Amino acid sequence: MRIALDAMGGDNAPVETIKGAIKALEEIEDLELVLVGQKEIIEQELSKYNVDKNKIQIVDAREIIAMTDDPVAAVKGKKDSSMNRTLELVKDGRVDASVSAGNTGALITASQLKLKRIKGVMRPAIATMFPNKKGNMLLLDAGATADCKPEFLNQYAMMGAKYLEILLGRKNPTVGLLNIGTESGKGNEVTRGAYELLKQNEKVNFIGNIESTEMLNGDVDVVVTDGFTGNMVLKTSEGVAKFILSSMKSEIEKSFIYKLGALLIKPALKTIVKKMDSSEYGGAIFLGLNGISIKAHGNSDSIAIKNAIKVANKFAQMKFIDELKKIIVIEDKEEI
Amino acid sequence: MRIALDAMGGDNAPVETIKGAIKALEEIEDLELVLVGQKEIIEQELSKYNVDKNKIQIVDAREIIAMTDDPVAAVKGKKDSSMNRTLELVKDGRVDASVSAGNTGALITASQLKLKRIKGVMRPAIATMFPNKKGNMLLLDAGATADCKPEFLNQYAMMGAKYLEILLGRKNPTVGLLNIGTESGKGNEVTRGAYELLKQNEKVNFIGNIESTEMLNGDVDVVVTDGFTGNMVLKTSEGVAKFILSSMKSEIEKSFIYKLGALLIKPALKTIVKKMDSSEYGGAIFLGLNGISIKAHGNSDSIAIKNAIKVANKFAQMKFIDELKKIIVIEDKEEI
Repeated sequence: MRIALDAMGGDNAPVETIKGAIKALEEIEDLELVLVGQKEIIEQELSKYNVDKNKIQIVDAREIIAMTDDPVAAVKGKKDSSMNRTLELVKDGRVDASVSAGNTGALITASQLKLKRIKGVMRPAIATMFPNKKGNMLLLDAGATADCKPEFLNQYAMMGAKYLEILLGRKNPTVGLLNIGTESGKGNEVTRGAYELLKQNEKVNFIGNIESTEMLNGDVDVVVTDGFTGNMVLKTSEGVAKFILSSMKSEIEKSFIYKLGALLIKPALKTIVKKMDSSEYGGAIFLGLNGISIKAHGNSDSIAIKNAIKVANKFAQMKFIDELKKIIVIEDKEEI
Repeated sequence: MRIALDAMGGDNAPVETIKGAIKALEEIEDLELVLVGQKEIIEQELSKYNVDKNKIQIVDAREIIAMTDDPVAAVKGKKDSSMNRTLELVKDGRVDASVSAGNTGALITASQLKLKRIKGVMRPAIATMFPNKKGNMLLLDAGATADCKPEFLNQYAMMGAKYLEILLGRKNPTVGLLNIGTESGKGNEVTRGAYELLKQNEKVNFIGNIESTEMLNGDVDVVVTDGFTGNMVLKTSEGVAKFILSSMKSEIEKSFIYKLGALLIKPALKTIVKKMDSSEYGGAIFLGLNGISIKAHGNSDSIAIKNAIKVANKFAQMKFIDELKKIIVIEDKEEI
């Protein structure tokens, strides 16, 4: 597969993006990468590595969208930005998928603008895998659309279920509506409305409201929420995990016995940290667009970039967009 | 102080509520408790303990509001419920404060109905202490009002800051707006509107948006959000903490060396678990009402009940409502 990487996107670009690209080339067979950004900077970074030049192409783009730029203004103003150029490669069919760790709002705007929504999709959603007790689950929307209508959530449920069916082969995945109570009347206007729609939606294996206390128990495959709440839940999880680990470290510092104990269980702790580390999950996809645009975390290191490229590669191999389009067209016909 | 306890409220009532009451009487000086609920059941539970009968009074209430009852219907329909009777004791000035672990929605409804809002307060908020790296902070609204307007959040900021000033003596506490980005334009309609109001509010030491990844770093004293998001963040934190601890347990089970290491650091782990345990924080207060109504967690055990009684006792000792009223009246006058 041929993947475009926004080499200038993210807090740690271009050093970590290029390093991640090199790692991806080492790990993934038959991968070709198109690195998009300021040519001389990319070449300088690449000179650090011993790399097969046949597998890398550089596409020059002179502008950079900063993490603090206004999303819409940046995408429309910086036409020659690495992000815009990256997505144009997807749009023009010159690559099979793209990855960017840049400004989330801008990437949402640029992805929608360049790739356009699949016909019938009201809003795209960021769908991201999340660890749970039985393995993992899909959470969406993780931050594409902050102000949602119940109808959007109903579509997210369908798209999320199809994602798991197609990409991971899960049959008839369960869908839960993220809420602050399990009873049907609970929540805010959006969740109450979405509950009614999902209850009536025969195409979705809806199991009702799910609270975030229970979300990680592994009883639900797809967790649907609005983009504000989804993003909040992701960031809260990250914050709490960091807090627990740092509390643990400072407790352990207090005694020699603790230090010894910590040394013994260190490999076990590392497994947990790895499980909780968002960079291990690589990337999130914008679900509902005519092309594969993978969002890596803004503070991605090279491992996170490599994993995002892996995800993009897998989506491309599975011809995910074609599969999703087919399904959505069928759904449309069924509804008429 | 004289505190009323809804003996029938919560998942573990009346066994744990009564046990918590006994613990509170053992720990808190000059405490008198009024236990509200079905007299014969309370007496039966009390008979398990050796208790100073001068410090306990029972107020009979025949009905119980279940955790699954519709809040408004239950409060209006079950007039002789332990929850209603408990709050009437506060309203009539027969006790200084009250505690209930019952149905949150019902307690919000009953508290508002019986105690009424302080003049000028648009919506009450549930304010709850939350651990962070430097000690703790106040989070509100933790679930009283799911659908909020920006104006509500602006008031929560003022009430939350006063809470910390009066109860904990923190001078000019910092206030952050919980959001999914730090820049001013980030978030949803509610946060964007609240940001503008808070920025202009000279009575609040507003430090801008705060993301939930950074919330626990200890750089902010009061975290303001709508009740849906606040409740979601609390439940997510609880879920993630549980997930990490259970993952740790199952990793440790995998080897003898890990088990030995875990044994050595067990006291350190217990400290962390205690830090994360919501029951250690006792209770949350409904901020903005003409009386002290403390909400204990629905699944409170006796320790959580005891701690909630402690909090109620402290609020009463500090004459918190009078202080809050004075401040809010002054704020009103200043604004005219």
